[in-house]
Amino acid sequence: MNLIVQKFGGTSVANVERIRNVAQIITDTYERGNDVIAVVSAQGDTTDDLIKKAAEITSKPSSREMDVLLSTGEQISMSLLAMAIEELGYPVISLSGWQAGFLTEATHGNARIKKINTERLQNELDKKNIVIVAGFQGINRYDDITTLGRGGSDTSAVAIAAALKADKCEIYTDVDGVYTTDPRIVPNAHKLDEITYDEMLELATCGANVLHNRSVEMAKKYSVKLEVRSSINSDVPGTEVKEVCKVEKMLIKGVAMDNDVARISVLEVPNQPGIAFKLFSALAAEKVNVDIILQSVGRNGTKDISFTVSTAHKQQALKVSEEFKEIVGAKEIVFKDNVSKVSIVGAGMLSNPGVAAKMFEALGESNINISMISTSEIKISVLIDQDQAKRAVNVIHDAFAL
Amino acid sequence: MNLIVQKFGGTSVANVERIRNVAQIITDTYERGNDVIAVVSAQGDTTDDLIKKAAEITSKPSSREMDVLLSTGEQISMSLLAMAIEELGYPVISLSGWQAGFLTEATHGNARIKKINTERLQNELDKKNIVIVAGFQGINRYDDITTLGRGGSDTSAVAIAAALKADKCEIYTDVDGVYTTDPRIVPNAHKLDEITYDEMLELATCGANVLHNRSVEMAKKYSVKLEVRSSINSDVPGTEVKEVCKVEKMLIKGVAMDNDVARISVLEVPNQPGIAFKLFSALAAEKVNVDIILQSVGRNGTKDISFTVSTAHKQQALKVSEEFKEIVGAKEIVFKDNVSKVSIVGAGMLSNPGVAAKMFEALGESNINISMISTSEIKISVLIDQDQAKRAVNVIHDAFAL
Repeated sequence: MNLIVQKFGGTSVANVERIRNVAQIITDTYERGNDVIAVVSAQGDTTDDLIKKAAEITSKPSSREMDVLLSTGEQISMSLLAMAIEELGYPVISLSGWQAGFLTEATHGNARIKKINTERLQNELDKKNIVIVAGFQGINRYDDITTLGRGGSDTSAVAIAAALKADKCEIYTDVDGVYTTDPRIVPNAHKLDEITYDEMLELATCGANVLHNRSVEMAKKYSVKLEVRSSINSDVPGTEVKEVCKVEKMLIKGVAMDNDVARISVLEVPNQPGIAFKLFSALAAEKVNVDIILQSVGRNGTKDISFTVSTAHKQQALKVSEEFKEIVGAKEIVFKDNVSKVSIVGAGMLSNPGVAAKMFEALGESNINISMISTSEIKISVLIDQDQAKRAVNVIHDAFAL
Repeated sequence: MNLIVQKFGGTSVANVERIRNVAQIITDTYERGNDVIAVVSAQGDTTDDLIKKAAEITSKPSSREMDVLLSTGEQISMSLLAMAIEELGYPVISLSGWQAGFLTEATHGNARIKKINTERLQNELDKKNIVIVAGFQGINRYDDITTLGRGGSDTSAVAIAAALKADKCEIYTDVDGVYTTDPRIVPNAHKLDEITYDEMLELATCGANVLHNRSVEMAKKYSVKLEVRSSINSDVPGTEVKEVCKVEKMLIKGVAMDNDVARISVLEVPNQPGIAFKLFSALAAEKVNVDIILQSVGRNGTKDISFTVSTAHKQQALKVSEEFKEIVGAKEIVFKDNVSKVSIVGAGMLSNPGVAAKMFEALGESNINISMISTSEIKISVLIDQDQAKRAVNVIHDAFAL
């Protein structure tokens, strides 16, 4: 008897046909003698429709009331999915975030899960019920409804799997696993059988939208065995995400592209100790996440500081940079938002110094100019012009013969 | 400082414009120094849309999951209304059924309120928040979401008013009060300034769809001062519903028409003692509510039993009647569903024997045939052909010069 947690995203329950398909996957798993908890997102466009409704009323809804509004999306899809499972003749019960025991921080819109009170979930499993849980939502200590932000349903699923020590957490999506790169960009990209949590984290951060990094972090922390699978071709094995992979000859696991990047440069900043710190602490105070940082060598008593942020933060980052420029007496701000970050990810990278050279060589031979570079133990990222990004992914993928 | 509970139905919050209008009514009340709790229904067609979604999945959804699904309707409208009030710059918070402390029976689809835990409501009022509450819903002792059935939001509002000893409970609707009869049928129908709980109850039961009878019963039990008002012409005073009205010369308060009636006759039932009891206990066991009953005088050792039920129960009532016919050896079943019940209601009726005569005379002079009659202390109902019903309402209204 195994406990399997399954997560189905918005496209997987977008219409009646897809809901029926998901009901079949769930009941097949139950039929094989497993306990099943299925975490479900809002149907296809529901969230966008609800946001539109709010926008008609006000341009600045409070995040508390937005959470009340948006959380109805999963409540609708969970009840419809439960009905589809009833229709197949199986015992089933749907639970919203608070019913499933999800306690979160007080923050609205992007709350973190603090705890799951598993009593109700456990009771329903004991009754041999299939349990459908609303993803993306919980309540805070004031009994107010909160939502978990982007990728929240993945996190809900992993959190349940961790809390109940599930044997497996299957993330169903519209692709059939994690690929070496986006198959829409590189047609001969291939699916990985397995990948480590760390590699998956780097890929997630680099814009491979298969799993949200918060869910991967949590899976790593609680050693939850994850599998990314297709809800359409549910017979095809997916990609397992785990602590250690079998040794493979493949050095790098994937190539990722992220277009959600803006670059800001502050030119001719007086070359004083600690001056960069002032800029980045001001950005942190505004909750702007900075990704790549490049600081030029000093020259004529000044230096240039460049950094990247996600496009959502570009206005705030620009504002902070302008204020910084005035205070310290820098010369000017240069802003560029048609840039892309292209990254290669692989656990064996650090111990193999030829990797970076091979990547830069491939880009150089294709006349693709690199404006910034960032490296970690298992990742090398370069910033390039957005119109060259797809070509860059292709030539890198070829160079490493993925 | 008064506490006013206001209830807004689905048409009152059907679109952005109507929501803004309701927000204005609420904040005007708050601005006059009152504490305000507003109970809100699902927007216009939302409930029908959700029922349609369920019907695409299954023809027989469980009532538990239907409640999960339908309760999202009020959660959407309450958050949108709260946003509209935020937009006007007032402190506001929306609460779903469970957050507002509504505890109900375990039954789904038509649960009765057992108790309201008023702590949260009271806390929010203490903070000077305007409180928006989802009508029609609560949770049962298993923490499962329940709905209150038809007219449930009226009941939610009256229950809050009773629990918090509110100074007034205002029911906003798309008519501006309780009329002597339906103004769409009788153009010179006029609005009543006040009406007793008992009269309102009889009118509600007779198909005057202004207030649901469960909410009127509760208002009577807890002496909640009710007022029915228009959400469109919110400056116009409505109709007050209370224990005792000022003495008025008007003997009867209104004429009501109910087309949701089916008549079933079982002909030539053996004339044995207790035989009618068998039929009506079998109907009760199937939860079929019987309204008017007519039993003919015995003749040739048999008698005829006729009764009316709401059209929703006609299939079940027919099934029970057929079984009864077989068991007792009656001759045949006659069924008729194009009938109407027309009623006059008024507290002074019993002490004035001329009332019934006047009603029957008016109908007789217009050649309208009465097939069944039922009376109570404050009501006289007649069953007539549906195509004569509107004319009947007019001639009765004229006869009593309402």
